[in-house]
Amino acid sequence: MKKIAIILTDLFEDSEYSHPVQAFRVGGHALTHVGLTKGSIVKGKKKQTPVRIDKPVSEVSVDDFDALLIPGGFSPDQLRADEDAVRFVRQFVESGKPVFSICHGPQLLITADVLQGRTITGYTSIIQDIKNAGAHFVDQAVVEDGNLVSSRNPGDLEAFIEACLKKLNP
Amino acid sequence: MKKIAIILTDLFEDSEYSHPVQAFRVGGHALTHVGLTKGSIVKGKKKQTPVRIDKPVSEVSVDDFDALLIPGGFSPDQLRADEDAVRFVRQFVESGKPVFSICHGPQLLITADVLQGRTITGYTSIIQDIKNAGAHFVDQAVVEDGNLVSSRNPGDLEAFIEACLKKLNP
Repeated sequence: MKKIAIILTDLFEDSEYSHPVQAFRVGGHALTHVGLTKGSIVKGKKKQTPVRIDKPVSEVSVDDFDALLIPGGFSPDQLRADEDAVRFVRQFVESGKPVFSICHGPQLLITADVLQGRTITGYTSIIQDIKNAGAHFVDQAVVEDGNLVSSRNPGDLEAFIEACLKKLNP
Repeated sequence: MKKIAIILTDLFEDSEYSHPVQAFRVGGHALTHVGLTKGSIVKGKKKQTPVRIDKPVSEVSVDDFDALLIPGGFSPDQLRADEDAVRFVRQFVESGKPVFSICHGPQLLITADVLQGRTITGYTSIIQDIKNAGAHFVDQAVVEDGNLVSSRNPGDLEAFIEACLKKLNP
């Protein structure tokens, strides 16, 4: 059993949250929903999937978890305006623990300034941002580089989830 | 009377569209709503302000207009996944005609690769992307650099609109 933090706020891409979470639960892992305000309900952008935030990012530590999931949609863009969220994500990447990023997830990694020299994929619209951040962008379903596992969009979920599960239980 | 193109799609920041548009109309300017699909109705992210798209970006030319407005919100992120939208914006900036960008507007300018060496402002969450694109980011209500006029967020609208109107009628 691994302890996984999921960082998200409103307008996350529903399936990029719900599909990995279902697989993680089936795998017996423990999930903590980390966001901006404890107890708030955030909602997905397409199906308005409701998610209760367990802990504010200002009160969590990388030491509390074994891995981090960053769902996409318009959630990462809002999270990266929050200093605590950016610091938490930076510390996670630097810790060497697995970080699972899909779709717009790399936006948080860019603001955290941890992509220099890394190989990663992400959503079409942010390709230029990924390259400008000093990363090597690869256009494939799932990309692994050290502790970073990344995918492009909901169409990649099957490959993404498989790679994440393998990373949790190598 | 100047001919102004407004490029937008769903989830634009309502006030960053409606306030400049009202001022441009009062000023006697002609407005064309440019988007992804002619005749479609796109909506704002907060008030669901409905806007009918007059022309698809694939069928317009910079020659048809005197200036371009890029409202923010989550509209620019979606537009920059469209090659025609990116090319139109690139050609506009390179033409030397006024380009008015607010909030997330610079996302389109980044993908169009026209920010190297330019001075600009934009929304908090995209500051790192702006810097990584080779631009000089300035944290003030309105920034002018050649044909580029930019502001940070809805709180800057008064200063933004004043600068835009001056640019249209120097």
